[in-house]
Amino acid sequence: MRLSRYFLPTLKETPAEAQIVSHRLMLRAGLIRQGAAGIYSWLPLGLKVLKNIESIVREEQNKAGALEVLMPTIQSSELWQESGRYDDYGKEMLRIEDRHGRQMLYGPTNEEMITDIFRREVKSYKDLPMNLYHIQWKFRDEIRPRFGVMRGREFLMKDAYSFDMTPEAGKQSYNAMFVAYLRTFARLGLKAIPMRADTGPIGGDLSHEFIVLADTGESEVFFDKAFDGLDPMVDVADGTDLQPIVDEWTSHYAATDEIHDAASCTVDSNDLVTGRGIEVGHIFFFGDKYSKPMNASVQGPDGDTVNVQMGSYGVGVSRLVGAIIEACHDENGIVWPESVAPYKVGLLNLRKKDDECTAACDKLYAQLTAASVEVLYDDTDAGAGAKFANMDLIGLPWQLAVGPRGLKNGVVELKNRKSGEREELSLEAAVAKLTA
Amino acid sequence: MRLSRYFLPTLKETPAEAQIVSHRLMLRAGLIRQGAAGIYSWLPLGLKVLKNIESIVREEQNKAGALEVLMPTIQSSELWQESGRYDDYGKEMLRIEDRHGRQMLYGPTNEEMITDIFRREVKSYKDLPMNLYHIQWKFRDEIRPRFGVMRGREFLMKDAYSFDMTPEAGKQSYNAMFVAYLRTFARLGLKAIPMRADTGPIGGDLSHEFIVLADTGESEVFFDKAFDGLDPMVDVADGTDLQPIVDEWTSHYAATDEIHDAASCTVDSNDLVTGRGIEVGHIFFFGDKYSKPMNASVQGPDGDTVNVQMGSYGVGVSRLVGAIIEACHDENGIVWPESVAPYKVGLLNLRKKDDECTAACDKLYAQLTAASVEVLYDDTDAGAGAKFANMDLIGLPWQLAVGPRGLKNGVVELKNRKSGEREELSLEAAVAKLTA
Repeated sequence: MRLSRYFLPTLKETPAEAQIVSHRLMLRAGLIRQGAAGIYSWLPLGLKVLKNIESIVREEQNKAGALEVLMPTIQSSELWQESGRYDDYGKEMLRIEDRHGRQMLYGPTNEEMITDIFRREVKSYKDLPMNLYHIQWKFRDEIRPRFGVMRGREFLMKDAYSFDMTPEAGKQSYNAMFVAYLRTFARLGLKAIPMRADTGPIGGDLSHEFIVLADTGESEVFFDKAFDGLDPMVDVADGTDLQPIVDEWTSHYAATDEIHDAASCTVDSNDLVTGRGIEVGHIFFFGDKYSKPMNASVQGPDGDTVNVQMGSYGVGVSRLVGAIIEACHDENGIVWPESVAPYKVGLLNLRKKDDECTAACDKLYAQLTAASVEVLYDDTDAGAGAKFANMDLIGLPWQLAVGPRGLKNGVVELKNRKSGEREELSLEAAVAKLTA
Repeated sequence: MRLSRYFLPTLKETPAEAQIVSHRLMLRAGLIRQGAAGIYSWLPLGLKVLKNIESIVREEQNKAGALEVLMPTIQSSELWQESGRYDDYGKEMLRIEDRHGRQMLYGPTNEEMITDIFRREVKSYKDLPMNLYHIQWKFRDEIRPRFGVMRGREFLMKDAYSFDMTPEAGKQSYNAMFVAYLRTFARLGLKAIPMRADTGPIGGDLSHEFIVLADTGESEVFFDKAFDGLDPMVDVADGTDLQPIVDEWTSHYAATDEIHDAASCTVDSNDLVTGRGIEVGHIFFFGDKYSKPMNASVQGPDGDTVNVQMGSYGVGVSRLVGAIIEACHDENGIVWPESVAPYKVGLLNLRKKDDECTAACDKLYAQLTAASVEVLYDDTDAGAGAKFANMDLIGLPWQLAVGPRGLKNGVVELKNRKSGEREELSLEAAVAKLTA
C-alpha cells in the first residue's frame, strides 16, 4: 500500500482524553477514532490488526474442533427471561424497544441464544460433543467507559459454547479450549497465564482467566516463576489427551490481586513473581446452569433424557489490540509482534524528488509485493525525520529506508523495530531477507 | 469437514412461515435460523457462504482503490440531527436510549458518520480522491420483515463512501464503483443489470440499482437484450478510463416497473426483454448533500475551501445469499455457483459399514483436503437415498459418491450438481478432475 493513497491520520500530539498508553498510541497511530463514549471506528491500519487477531483466534478455534456460526447482535428479551438473567443483568445491558413495542436488547453475551439454537436442533447424544463459536460485536453499557478499546461499550468478542452429555465430557471440552487459548495467545506474541478465577454472573464452579503480563496492566498478579518454563505452543493432534497439559498449567500458583492471599500462598517467595496483568480471555464450565431452566436436553444411549453440560469461552478480540500494545511498545510507539502487524515492512523513500531514489523504492515495492510481503510504502512528500518517527509510531516490524547517499554505495538500510538493530544491505540482500 | 462432526440441521419439511424459495431453502438446508422477526443466526454452512460473498465484495472494493474501515453499529443521534435526517428517517430507525439517557441509534446506513470521520481528519485536496468502505451489520426496523434475509431487520451491508474535490472527479469515483459492481456480481455467478434509479432518501441526482435477474424476483424489469452481449468482467488496470465502459452499460434501456413507461420506451419490442429482478446493489452520487450541512471541506490547490463531492455505494451482502439462491436453484434444492459454494465437493460414503468403502472415502477425503479442495464428507449412518437428497438440497457443485458396487470395478461416481451430469471415474481420475 502506498501511503499517499492510504488513510492514516497519525497525530503528533498526545490526545488529552487518553489515560493509558495503548489508548494514546491507538489514537496517535491512526488505528481508531471515537464515535461516542466507548464506541470506536476502526481506521484502515487498526482494522488490519483487528482482522489479523481475529484470524488467529479463528484458526485455533477451528483446530480445536469448534464450529463457527454467527448470531445477531440484537436479541429478544424472552430468552433472558427464561434463564432468569434479564433482571439480574442490570443497566449494563442495552435494552431496546422496537417499533412494535417488543423488548429487545443488544447482546452482551450469548449463553441464552446459543442454548436456544441447540435445544431446537439437537436431540441425541450422537451429535455431541459440540462446540459452537462466533466472533461478533457485543455491547455492554459500562457506566464509565474508558481506556479506549480496553473498556469500551461496543466490542468484538469471540465466544464459544460447548455442549456435552456428562460433566467428564464437558471437562474435556473445557480442556480443549484451555489449550486453544494457550496457543492463541502465544501466536499473538503474548505471554498469557491462566489463573483460577471467580465465575461471577456467568456461573459455574470451574473457570480460568487468561492474563497477559504488561507493566501497564490493570491489576496486580502473582504467579510461580515455573510458568516461565512452560511452552504454550502445545502440539495438539486428534485424540491427544489434554488433561496432563492442563494439569501442568494449573498446578502452579497464579492469582490476581482479587484472589491472591499472601498468608495462604505456599509458593516460596524466591519463586513468586509479581507483575501486572490484563485479562484477555475467560473460560467457564457451568454444567446445567442454562440447560436446566431452558430445558436443553438430549437423549442418551440408554434412552434417558439429560440436560446438557455446558461451558462458555470468551476472548476479547478488540480488547486484544489494546492489550498487545500495552505489552509491546516503547517510548517511540507501538512494536507489533509480526503475527498481528498490519504490514510487515515499512518502506521509506527518504528523498522523493530524487528520481533514482524513487525508482529504487518503486522497484523494491514491486518485488516485495510480488512475493506477498505486505509493505506500507511511504511515498509522500514528508521529510526523512518525520517519516522515521511515523514508522516508529505505527510499529511495523521492519523499516527499509532508501536514500540517495546509500544508493550511491548500492545499499539500503534495514531496521528491526523491536531490537532497533540496523544494517546496510544491497537491495537484493534486503529483498532476500524480507522474503525469506 | 466430516458431516458427523458438523452442525447441519437440514429439514425435510418445508417451513410454513417461508413464502419464497430462498427463505424455504435457507431454512431447509440449515443455513440460518430465526432469532426474532427479521433477525437471523447464521449456522456453519450459511456463514461460509456469507463469508465467501463478503470476500469477493472486499477484493473488488480493494481492487477499485477503496480503503476498508469498520464503523460501529451504534451511533450517536447528534450527527443525524446535523444532517437533518434524524427526524426524516421515521420508525425504520432503531432508536436507543443509553443508561445516561443519551439518544443513540443502530446505524441503518453511515453517510453521517463517515462524513464526520472525514471532516475531522482530511483537510487538503492532496488527500483526494478517497473512498472508504466497511462491511458491517445494519438495522432497519421494517414494519413487516419477511422473505428471510431478503427483507430482514438486521442485515450485513457493504457501504462505501467517496470524497472528491469536484463533481467531475466525483463522477470518476462513481464510475470506479460502477465497474467494481459489474465485476463483483459477475464473480458471484450472477447476471446483474444496472438500472437508472430514483435516489430516494439518500438524495442526489445520479443513481443506479444493480438488479439480479431471477424468475422469482421481487419486481418486474424491462431491458434491452443488448445487455446479453456485454461482458461484466471488465479488465481494470490503474489509469484505465472507465467512462466508455460506463457509457456502454448505461446506453441501453433498463428500468424497473417503478420507472418503466411503455409509452416512452424506445426499444424495439423485439429487443425488449421482460423479467423479474432483485436489487442487490445501489450506488448514488449526491454531491454536497451531506458535506454542506456537516461542513466537510478541504482546501483546494488555489487555497479555496470547498465542500467535498460525495457518493455512496451499497451492496446487500446478507441479502445476496438469498438473491443467489433465487437465481440458482432447482426443484431439489440450491445450486451454488462455485465461487460462493460453502464446499466444492460433497463426498458420499454410500455404505459406511463396508470397510473397503469407508477406507476409500477416507483416502479420497485426505487427498482432496491435502490439495486444498474444500470437501464436506458425509460419513454418517444415513442411507444412500437420504445422503443424495441432502447433497442436492445443500447444493455443493460436485458430488462424489463411493459405493461398494462401483469400487469392485475400481470406480466412483462424480455428479455435477448444476448439469446433473454423472460420470464413472477411477479414484485417481476423480481426484485429478477435482483438483485440476
